[in-house]
Amino acid sequence: MKTKLPHCDFNKHKNPKSKNITRFYKHKGNFTWQGIKTEKYKAEGIDWADIIRRVLIGGHNESAKFHLRYFEIAPGGYSSFEKHKHEHVVVGIRGKGNVLSGKKNYELNFLDTLYMAPNTPHQLSNPFNEPFGFLCIVNAKRDKPRVLRKGV
Amino acid sequence: MKTKLPHCDFNKHKNPKSKNITRFYKHKGNFTWQGIKTEKYKAEGIDWADIIRRVLIGGHNESAKFHLRYFEIAPGGYSSFEKHKHEHVVVGIRGKGNVLSGKKNYELNFLDTLYMAPNTPHQLSNPFNEPFGFLCIVNAKRDKPRVLRKGV
Repeated sequence: MKTKLPHCDFNKHKNPKSKNITRFYKHKGNFTWQGIKTEKYKAEGIDWADIIRRVLIGGHNESAKFHLRYFEIAPGGYSSFEKHKHEHVVVGIRGKGNVLSGKKNYELNFLDTLYMAPNTPHQLSNPFNEPFGFLCIVNAKRDKPRVLRKGV
Repeated sequence: MKTKLPHCDFNKHKNPKSKNITRFYKHKGNFTWQGIKTEKYKAEGIDWADIIRRVLIGGHNESAKFHLRYFEIAPGGYSSFEKHKHEHVVVGIRGKGNVLSGKKNYELNFLDTLYMAPNTPHQLSNPFNEPFGFLCIVNAKRDKPRVLRKGV
């Protein structure tokens, strides 16, 4: 059974005044960047917990066909269990975490890279004791995820 | 003055037998990945030195609108000074290096992220004593770079 939940991924993050110009985002340490704000993973929903997002590329009217985001899941946290037509590429950057992708479970450590094909049900989680941070690259134009219920 | 040089970026890296399926590339350490080969930066040319490339996403007929590559420049090495219509996103991963982008120079350290707008002349180089490795994300469909000559 699938349920649709509204979430912030498709709200307009873009600043309409932004120009498509070269920009440098200095890493300030602790997986934060100069000029990049920390946002909720999604605006609402009860199907996820303890995640933040930092949109590195995608919030400034860039013409690139992709967006680059950093997500961080606190110990005990997890993302929505969902699927969508667009692909995901995730790259482990901080700590480690688990990825359920299709019927497989992966442990994602530093620089481990996972390509998720279209329509793969997936969920990321952090059962460990330190923050789990990863880069996630997606197409700039993409469909809305559908939240799934496990075992239904 | 601009010169066109053939290079491998537009040779077909794709294995025609590859399917657009979920794939996991485990980081084996030392910035190498299971299942990902090390290639020359470009097939030929005398305008660059001491760079290798590892194509993480883009060599297996993925349907994503972007490719993800890891490049590593040895001490003393440098990439072509070039420009193109497609955007670049580079993220520092290993060591540090320099990026000339437009008229500005940036030092790229771990997780520093640079968005290069279309048609920005650029060159990456490593004047330091350890390898300089970075992720580079580009559109899957992109134009060929034009190699530039400095000061001409």
